[in-house]
Amino acid sequence: MGKKAEKPSTNKPVSRATVPVSKGWTHVDSKGQARMVNIGTKKITRRKAIASGTVRVKAETLRRIKDNSLKKGDVLSVAKVSGILAAKRTYDLIPMCHPIRITGVELSFSLGQAPPRVDIVAQVEATDRTGVEMEALMAVAAAALTVYDMCKAVDRGIQITDLGLIKKSGGKSGIYLRKRLSQVTMK
Amino acid sequence: MGKKAEKPSTNKPVSRATVPVSKGWTHVDSKGQARMVNIGTKKITRRKAIASGTVRVKAETLRRIKDNSLKKGDVLSVAKVSGILAAKRTYDLIPMCHPIRITGVELSFSLGQAPPRVDIVAQVEATDRTGVEMEALMAVAAAALTVYDMCKAVDRGIQITDLGLIKKSGGKSGIYLRKRLSQVTMK
Amino acid sequence: MGKKAEKPSTNKPVSRATVPVSKGWTHVDSKGQARMVNIGTKKITRRKAIASGTVRVKAETLRRIKDNSLKKGDVLSVAKVSGILAAKRTYDLIPMCHPIRITGVELSFSLGQAPPRVDIVAQVEATDRTGVEMEALMAVAAAALTVYDMCKAVDRGIQITDLGLIKKSGGKSGIYLRKRLSQVTMK
Amino acid sequence: MGKKAEKPSTNKPVSRATVPVSKGWTHVDSKGQARMVNIGTKKITRRKAIASGTVRVKAETLRRIKDNSLKKGDVLSVAKVSGILAAKRTYDLIPMCHPIRITGVELSFSLGQAPPRVDIVAQVEATDRTGVEMEALMAVAAAALTVYDMCKAVDRGIQITDLGLIKKSGGKSGIYLRKRLSQVTMK
Amino acid sequence: MGKKAEKPSTNKPVSRATVPVSKGWTHVDSKGQARMVNIGTKKITRRKAIASGTVRVKAETLRRIKDNSLKKGDVLSVAKVSGILAAKRTYDLIPMCHPIRITGVELSFSLGQAPPRVDIVAQVEATDRTGVEMEALMAVAAAALTVYDMCKAVDRGIQITDLGLIKKSGGKSGIYLRKRLSQVTMK
Amino acid sequence: MGKKAEKPSTNKPVSRATVPVSKGWTHVDSKGQARMVNIGTKKITRRKAIASGTVRVKAETLRRIKDNSLKKGDVLSVAKVSGILAAKRTYDLIPMCHPIRITGVELSFSLGQAPPRVDIVAQVEATDRTGVEMEALMAVAAAALTVYDMCKAVDRGIQITDLGLIKKSGGKSGIYLRKRLSQVTMK
Repeated sequence: MGKKAEKPSTNKPVSRATVPVSKGWTHVDSKGQARMVNIGTKKITRRKAIASGTVRVKAETLRRIKDNSLKKGDVLSVAKVSGILAAKRTYDLIPMCHPIRITGVELSFSLGQAPPRVDIVAQVEATDRTGVEMEALMAVAAAALTVYDMCKAVDRGIQITDLGLIKKSGGKSGIYLRKRLSQVTMK
Repeated sequence: MGKKAEKPSTNKPVSRATVPVSKGWTHVDSKGQARMVNIGTKKITRRKAIASGTVRVKAETLRRIKDNSLKKGDVLSVAKVSGILAAKRTYDLIPMCHPIRITGVELSFSLGQAPPRVDIVAQVEATDRTGVEMEALMAVAAAALTVYDMCKAVDRGIQITDLGLIKKSGGKSGIYLRKRLSQVTMK
Repeated sequence: MGKKAEKPSTNKPVSRATVPVSKGWTHVDSKGQARMVNIGTKKITRRKAIASGTVRVKAETLRRIKDNSLKKGDVLSVAKVSGILAAKRTYDLIPMCHPIRITGVELSFSLGQAPPRVDIVAQVEATDRTGVEMEALMAVAAAALTVYDMCKAVDRGIQITDLGLIKKSGGKSGIYLRKRLSQVTMK
Repeated sequence: MGKKAEKPSTNKPVSRATVPVSKGWTHVDSKGQARMVNIGTKKITRRKAIASGTVRVKAETLRRIKDNSLKKGDVLSVAKVSGILAAKRTYDLIPMCHPIRITGVELSFSLGQAPPRVDIVAQVEATDRTGVEMEALMAVAAAALTVYDMCKAVDRGIQITDLGLIKKSGGKSGIYLRKRLSQVTMK
Repeated sequence: MGKKAEKPSTNKPVSRATVPVSKGWTHVDSKGQARMVNIGTKKITRRKAIASGTVRVKAETLRRIKDNSLKKGDVLSVAKVSGILAAKRTYDLIPMCHPIRITGVELSFSLGQAPPRVDIVAQVEATDRTGVEMEALMAVAAAALTVYDMCKAVDRGIQITDLGLIKKSGGKSGIYLRKRLSQVTMK
Repeated sequence: MGKKAEKPSTNKPVSRATVPVSKGWTHVDSKGQARMVNIGTKKITRRKAIASGTVRVKAETLRRIKDNSLKKGDVLSVAKVSGILAAKRTYDLIPMCHPIRITGVELSFSLGQAPPRVDIVAQVEATDRTGVEMEALMAVAAAALTVYDMCKAVDRGIQITDLGLIKKSGGKSGIYLRKRLSQVTMK
């Protein structure tokens, strides 16, 4: 029985490595089990991803951020640093993400009026076997949560919305480009 | 001159510690400089926070998540684990957050139809000097990004929305309760 | 319908928090869902746990470790440092573990002859609401893997065995004490 | 004298870099000092490692894991996620390990009856200058400790055994293959 | 013999816990072995530590930092964020440090002229069983290295000097206060 | 206006990526905003950096370190391990640093008499698109702080000085070599 019990466990992963994954569902193998998809055979190419998100605040909070940012820019620059650091730690937070040697990260913030909000855009680049969408999304999420954290004492109703991918290039799937949901819903 | 140069730098933090922070703006001192607010004098009380967020997916993606979750529940249980781990690492990602000894974390997921989406709710508890809103928000954000990551190969247009605080109790500011923006906007 | 979809997700965690967990199965709630059990109501007491494990090596490898340790003790002192650091990071590696303020960690190593091996014992202490068994086990595991790593170039057949809890005190469940499996199987 | 004191410290590492390490003892230099061996001149090749380990539990615990896994599979899927995350963090836990861009991780679990146990197998792949044995071993260790953590409330006597390397390919040393100690000892 | 080999390893830590450490040498036990000293019996008191350090730069670099800081203050505010985050991670970087629940961190920077330099002062507070000197020193070190990193492209000769403790209060050893070495050497 | 608000935020990073950075100030873009400079177009070459620093201690402390190091070498070997681990985590501590696949790290320590001190030298190597100065400096800083931590109970006046770059090779800027400030100031 020992044999009977050992065999499957020792052989499964080996055989499994060659099992085709269910259609387009790269993070779930043919048995519906989560796994970190093998990218060993993918080509190393230049990858770029741009993600964005919106932090909806009260007009009063927006004014405070603006005054502060004109003086010292601290809220937004703390948010920027947290976004850059979080991008580098994506593989450590999102279980199925691969460690990637990021070659560049940029975050920019713009303050909007109707509704009052901080729009955050992150661009991440890498030269690797897989894309950097998650790194860009993580950068925006961490920066947005940092804005939330630094304003929450004066604004409990802050909402983070429209966090999604804007653009992606590099890799087999080629270029992906979209309009922001916010533009659609805001019309 | 050495003296002149030394004095301010050595004395500033000492004096600064007693400087009242600008009204309700706890993360920014009177000079508009970011800092980690001192909670040493706050009372240790039982704290609870509930945050929620929504991952908007295609109907087809929702169906796949549901089928998969009925079989193995892997997408949602991977997301749950990432949310629990992220909650514990909040202080390490959000610069001005304090390390907190979390005493409990729970995440729950519900699949909604119109629009097709995964609603995520996280509840975090601690007995400490400061609240756990950021921990609850971070748990939802990481879980949502994990759902995104595991579905992105089949659905590039995923959006994370309505990430915000639902309920908060414990501490000087007492109980906070609100309706979800999604309920409002979905009417 | 929005209401219908919202309610469960928003209410579940609240109700769930009061749901009795399945008998003695503290990490799985009544629905069989994994969660980080809530220890908020547990008493803060002095906790101690001792774990041990064995690294089985070739006689030649044991001799090298011994010679090296008589000279500089480097293999074992690197292993010790990795064990102490890993104990502090247990909550970050084991999903359902709580962050604990460890108050002390000690590791000791002894070289055994029949079979040739390194026995590792870790003792961890904390004053907290939950025990430190996992911290002690993690310390032994990391130290054992470090010994493995530093010897693997000369010994590919190393095995880590008998990793388990030796003693535990503090908390509601009181003192736990056991003989090591190795003592049994080695008779 | 400053000169006398400076010279050795400034020159040593430079000269040392070219010092041949003691026979096959790659983590210890000619002076018996631990160091992170320089792999800069090694060839980048496809690396694969398979490690396994066993978690010995009570029959009753095995039954609970099985029932739970048939329902939700949560214990094992939480363990799987912790194993995948730990594999990516190996270089951060084992002092002399190099950071590696892992390209894939898979864990599989099988439940055995005599003795009652959970057998864990991890396969890790990378395309790099050094192997991934430690990453595979770390994945199994973290997954095993997670199973331990989630079952310990009902089973204090759990033991993790037979943690070792099963197979290794890629790199100068070529393929390595072995039988599991458990198969031997279980006869 | 198994007995002979087991006994010391299993008993040592237990006995050792009660062994008096060598005079004032708290991180090294009576056998000269490194260990994480047990603070379980120490009183929980309010702790404060102030550390400082100096980054010596070229006059030209100082001018650039100043101009930049008058405009956006980015170099210094990035350094500040890195210092705050590093303070929280001290226990994870310095092997024998205990995890501490920091209650506040502040960093301040002052630009000095003769010699051209950035003086950094960090104040850390906690209510715990051990002091926060290392946290304050780590905050200054990380902030100084961040200044270095952001200026190194234009100034390769940057030196970090005079990193030490300025003031310490709380705990058995009471208040400690000193002059900065730089004040002495600069006379 | 939504359009007006959206455009800049979505386009800025794209355009910005092509904006020339201000002369030699690679971490600050043309608007004085901090960013993680894009190294995607840099050549992959063999990089090496050597950094050093000095821990000034009391003669009595030096004697204790020496005695201990002759017996077990524990203080210095704990410091060495912390330096190696910190080097690998540089990108996670210094916000604008890139993740780098380090191929080797070596630390060496020498004890000096006038003044009593521990000189630390770290050499880091990598084959990557950017240099490893920060990794070498971080290794020295962490090792120095660990020496501080392990001696502070008997020596509160410890100072870390002269932390800087000694040598650098690889990359466009070629070789950099300098004398240590300590040699200058000690004459």
